[in-house]
Amino acid sequence: MPIHSGIIDNPKADRIRKVSDLSSRKRREEYGRFCIEGPQAVREAIAYRPEIIGDLFVEVRAGGQAQGEQARPLSTVVERLEADSQAYDIYVHHVTSRVMQRISTDSQGIVAVADLAAMRVDAEDVPLAEGATVAAFWQIRDPGNAGTVIRAADAAGCDAVVFVDDCVDVLNPKVVRSSVGSLFHIPVLTMSTREFMQWTKSIHAKVVAADVYGLEGRPAMPLPEYIQQGELDGVQPHAFLFGNEARGLPESILKQVDRSVCIPMYGKAESLNLATSAAILLHTVAMSSHIERI
Amino acid sequence: MPIHSGIIDNPKADRIRKVSDLSSRKRREEYGRFCIEGPQAVREAIAYRPEIIGDLFVEVRAGGQAQGEQARPLSTVVERLEADSQAYDIYVHHVTSRVMQRISTDSQGIVAVADLAAMRVDAEDVPLAEGATVAAFWQIRDPGNAGTVIRAADAAGCDAVVFVDDCVDVLNPKVVRSSVGSLFHIPVLTMSTREFMQWTKSIHAKVVAADVYGLEGRPAMPLPEYIQQGELDGVQPHAFLFGNEARGLPESILKQVDRSVCIPMYGKAESLNLATSAAILLHTVAMSSHIERI
Repeated sequence: MPIHSGIIDNPKADRIRKVSDLSSRKRREEYGRFCIEGPQAVREAIAYRPEIIGDLFVEVRAGGQAQGEQARPLSTVVERLEADSQAYDIYVHHVTSRVMQRISTDSQGIVAVADLAAMRVDAEDVPLAEGATVAAFWQIRDPGNAGTVIRAADAAGCDAVVFVDDCVDVLNPKVVRSSVGSLFHIPVLTMSTREFMQWTKSIHAKVVAADVYGLEGRPAMPLPEYIQQGELDGVQPHAFLFGNEARGLPESILKQVDRSVCIPMYGKAESLNLATSAAILLHTVAMSSHIERI
Repeated sequence: MPIHSGIIDNPKADRIRKVSDLSSRKRREEYGRFCIEGPQAVREAIAYRPEIIGDLFVEVRAGGQAQGEQARPLSTVVERLEADSQAYDIYVHHVTSRVMQRISTDSQGIVAVADLAAMRVDAEDVPLAEGATVAAFWQIRDPGNAGTVIRAADAAGCDAVVFVDDCVDVLNPKVVRSSVGSLFHIPVLTMSTREFMQWTKSIHAKVVAADVYGLEGRPAMPLPEYIQQGELDGVQPHAFLFGNEARGLPESILKQVDRSVCIPMYGKAESLNLATSAAILLHTVAMSSHIERI
């Protein structure tokens, strides 16, 4: 696609206002678009899902060019992304600094606008191989945490992420950004609690709650013990379910899972935060599975 | 100690200005004091290091009390902390909302002022048992990260944390807060790179760099392999050394360590951030050591 030759300098232009509006979930739903901010996330989107990107907004230095000279992006990193995008059906718009400020205060010079519907994944479309691992998060609310756990699930080689019940919007710009591109590597599903329980049953997955305590009479088993017992047999899929940042998982859900496991605490710290717990648990499971498969 | 009966209402009072000044490292050094903000951090400081706390500033609801009625803190949590502090040599000062705003914008109603010198730890004062684990961070710069890794090291049962070379100040209020009290559970040392190398040598510790690549010809060994080889024998102390958030560890340091290990990446994510990497590595080491010691 050709790069539009003009430089958009009017922050009040209709097109710019509409992109800026995508910070609101309601507007994302209405326009069917969402924003990908910053070079890292845009790079991964171009590399893994170029077909979902419609427009690329690139900040250029205003003025200073000699007559006929091309306006240039802020950094060579952004310049390379702009060049990479030309292999696809992506429109590039050059904008001034004040226009970019209106689009995003966190762009580092580049923002992509992508198709929302193309990011929706149905559970039936997620192929789960033998011994697959699913990372599920119930009522995760903080956008930074949400992106971080998607990245942790990706790094641990999980097959899918599920946001269960009333969670932060997966396409919130802060989630997209803090996933550092992992959102484009791994399917992220959203379901109600009932749908999640039905789905895991239908794929014969074991549902394991990550919970400090578990239930009375059925306390959480320390993770190393769970692994040593050979529960991760590489055949049955596992869905690890993490609770809300502040409240964890309610009893009503703990009663529906197959097992609760906890991360053992060795020092005087009482707990770890959600994102750290998820990273430790998912990576421990991945490392032990990979060792056993050698 | 008695609770001072008056309520401080003047944000410009000399005493208040001096507390507010403790957000600056220079002033902390000058006054020999630092701030502990928020109920969680204050609770852990009272529980583990009450002797270091000199003053407690507690926000009370201004007005509204009937004649003779006691001004009350904002929450029952803070009220309990105030009561707990009375077992020690701690002065309690009630302050109004605007005074607390001047002291800290992140207090949730309570701030303790503590003795800086009492937090300094000398390497000789840190007793390291057989098979001790030390978590060391070279040029860690972000206060939130610094607190998070201290908490992760505490949760993994590490025996000490070391901030190596030019790091964020351990007593920066954001470090104190994000350690969620772990700063009062575990000794945190600061050293130059040369001092760190000398100290680890003197205690016969193996120094293991956490690094994605390692050196040319001496690449990083994946963590599970390192553990499976039985390197963590429960006898020789281990010091795991993590690099700067953006740049990792320089070659000059990688050349001085005994070994580099990396966390294997199983999905498409290229890397994990420092705090997540530290939590995974330290907890994996702890879990494997505890299993082997059973």
